[in-house]
Formats: sequence, C-alpha cells, structure tokens
Amino acid sequence: MSVGTVYGLGLGPGAADLMSVRADRLLRGATHVAYFRKAGCNGQARAIVEGVIPAGATEHPMEYPVTTEIPFSDPRYNEVLAAFYAESCARLRTLAEAGEDVVVLCEGDPFFYGSFMHLYTRLTGVVPVEVVPGITGMSAAWTATGAPITWGDDILTVLPGTLPEDALVRGIAGADAVVVMKMGRHLPKLRRALARAGRAGEAWLVECAAMPGQKVTRLDDYPGETAPYFSIALVHGQGRRP
Amino acid sequence: MSVGTVYGLGLGPGAADLMSVRADRLLRGATHVAYFRKAGCNGQARAIVEGVIPAGATEHPMEYPVTTEIPFSDPRYNEVLAAFYAESCARLRTLAEAGEDVVVLCEGDPFFYGSFMHLYTRLTGVVPVEVVPGITGMSAAWTATGAPITWGDDILTVLPGTLPEDALVRGIAGADAVVVMKMGRHLPKLRRALARAGRAGEAWLVECAAMPGQKVTRLDDYPGETAPYFSIALVHGQGRRP
Repeated sequence: MSVGTVYGLGLGPGAADLMSVRADRLLRGATHVAYFRKAGCNGQARAIVEGVIPAGATEHPMEYPVTTEIPFSDPRYNEVLAAFYAESCARLRTLAEAGEDVVVLCEGDPFFYGSFMHLYTRLTGVVPVEVVPGITGMSAAWTATGAPITWGDDILTVLPGTLPEDALVRGIAGADAVVVMKMGRHLPKLRRALARAGRAGEAWLVECAAMPGQKVTRLDDYPGETAPYFSIALVHGQGRRP
Repeated sequence: MSVGTVYGLGLGPGAADLMSVRADRLLRGATHVAYFRKAGCNGQARAIVEGVIPAGATEHPMEYPVTTEIPFSDPRYNEVLAAFYAESCARLRTLAEAGEDVVVLCEGDPFFYGSFMHLYTRLTGVVPVEVVPGITGMSAAWTATGAPITWGDDILTVLPGTLPEDALVRGIAGADAVVVMKMGRHLPKLRRALARAGRAGEAWLVECAAMPGQKVTRLDDYPGETAPYFSIALVHGQGRRP
C-alpha cells in the first residue's frame, strides 16, 4: 500500500472561483478534507469551499485550543499551540500512512502568514506533503480598491498590525506601498503610525475582500476604532508610470 | 448594443492550472484575447495559456516598442511607452465599443508590478474594466523553496532589484522576510546589499517558479553574475512558531 499525500491547499481570498484550477480539482476529488477552525465556529476556510467539497468526503475539523485568550507573549500560548499542532499532525499522518490523501484547507496562500506552515514543518520528511499556492487576501484587497498597489520601482512592505507603533512607523516610512494585515483592535495605533510616517489620508481599509460583504473605505472615513481581524489596510505606491 | 468589458486576467505564476477558476472560465469563453509581448517573441503570458485559449479566438498581441534599449531615466522612454499604451487602449476601446468583451492576459497578479495597470488607468471610466487577481510569481517562488516566507509578526518587504544598492540595503535591513523581483543583471548588487545588511548566506534564487524549468538555488551557490529577468530572490522570515 502506498502512503498518501497531505496537500496544503491555498483557497485564495474568499470567493470559491478565485481558487486555482489545481486546488479546485484536488478538492473536488478529495475523500478527506481537514481545516482549522475556532471552537464553536464553522471557520472561514470551510465556508469558502461550501458547494465544492464532494458530498461523501470525510471532514476533519481541527479546533484551535486558544485564539486570543492567552497573549502570544505568555509561554503557555506556545505550549498549548505546539501540543495542538502535534496532535493535528498525528491525525493527518495516520490518514496518510493508511494510504489516504488529505487536503488541508488554507485561506489565502499557505506559506504567507498561514497556520498550515506549523503542520508543514512537522510533517515534511515524515509523509509526502505538497503545497498549492493561492491568491493572497492582500491581492483581493488591492483589486477591490480599483487601484494598482505597486508601479515601476515601488517598494512594498507588508506589516502585521500587531507590531508596536514604532515598528509600524519605520515600516511605513521606508516603503512606497504598504499592506497592513491582522488589523482588528490595532486600528488606532495604525492611524497614529500613518500620521507619524507622513502617509495619513492615503490609506484604505478593505473588509471581506472578494467575499459577499466586501467593503472598501478610506481609512479617514472609517468610523470604528476596531476593524474585523481579517481586514486589510493599504497605502498604494505612486511610482513611475508612463 | 451593449458595451463590452475589458478583463485584466491574472494568470498566476506560470502553470496553467494555477490560474483561478474564474480566469480559466473567462479565458475558455473568450472571443478576443490581448497580451503584451516583446517584438519577435511570443511572450510569457501567451505561453502560459497555450491549450486553454479557444481555437476560434482572435488574438491581439501588443508589442512593446522598447524594453531595455532606452534607459528608464531617459524622457524618451516615457514618451515612447505612453504612446504605445495609448494606442493599445484605443484598440481595446474600439473592440469594447463594438460590444465585444476582451480578455487581457497578465502574468501573476495584474495590480502587482504589471503592465496592465497602464491600460487600466487609461480605460477606467471610458469602458467597463474588470480585474481578476492572480497568484503572484513570488508566491510560486517561496512555495518552490519548500519553506514558508512569513511567520507570526514577520515584516515582508518586496524590493525591485533595479533599486540602488543603498535602497536595497535599507529595505533588507528593515525586514524579516525579503523578496527581490526583476533580478536580471542586478545580481552582484544584490549580493553586496545582502552582505551589508547582514543577511548573506540566507538568500535563495528561484528561476521559472511554477514552470517546467523551475530551479531553486541557494544564492551563495548560484554560479552566474546575471539571472533571468524574471528570477526572484528570497530571504525567509524566522518569526514566532509554536
């Protein structure tokens, strides 16, 4: 009996038809489909593929033991998550060693700020693992604004909104185009950082890029002090253009 | 008669099945297919879709009047290219106003260092234009290395290799993960910049990501002083990982 393969499937930003042809084909042929989710939620990755997963496929939800209940800086955060990833890998490995292929659903691109990478590093060399890249959420976000993100020799910097304010200022000041991920409650800090870096008034906030609730707002006109965690803020580059 | 739509179709990094389901569907149903190419070459975008374009589609190659013959800094470069983009837009506009949809092939993602954006800004508000995002070449490149590009709170900076050495050093030093696009003859400069930023020995060079000739090499082991223009150099982030 041959060993099965674990596929890290980039699903893209949220619309089922922005999945790659390769991901779509693997998913429609899948017998085992695994995905991360928060306890009590169905999960964004699973929602994207509703109607694409074959009716007979066995689903393997992997529920995060914590999300924001323990701060990253607490050593327990790493312990609890490490145990969770190890246990998730054991499940996938058992399936693969029984000869079954498993697709693991990954929002966006699996190697770009994804959770799959924690499984990938643990499974590589143990069972066959293949990664299918995907359209990132940031590509969908800048497409939604109707303006190109980088021109000519523009420098693009991608910053997690979770960074300290000074790090955001340095990142914004050193770049022509900026993407800020994981916004959530970090919005007031980002507003201050943009002002300090001299780019206030240029930023956009995109919620639910490529999804039914897509909303594009100039950051200056955004009313809230908190954005959904998966919102993306953008500053467009203004480089060379004939 | 209704006006047609110009679609900027992100083709992804090079493998036809890494196109999105949406792009694949639009392309298979296309009657007019436009694409940029260098005079005398068939062009990378056109090569990606070989076998996907319907047999009866009319092709509209748009041939760059210059590529590297005139330096960017020469005002003639902008003049010649501006005239070329204006003329290309006139062709697409004529088709759309005759009620025809046209798909324009774009390697990677149309709004990320693409040529389509020069048509997009000229056609927006004139005829309907829609952009389909795509998997970027850099996603295919980091997937090819078999290692995630960003972890946790890593900062990613994307630098055109055409930048001056000091700008490369600043960009590399300020980031955790680095992508350098448009390598070409800029390889020796990048090697120096990596060394000055303290990241020598960590970089990878990916040629033809997601294409038949894909090659992944540690930059230190890369023999040449020149890489193909569309090679991508990468330094992986090393951020938080439970």
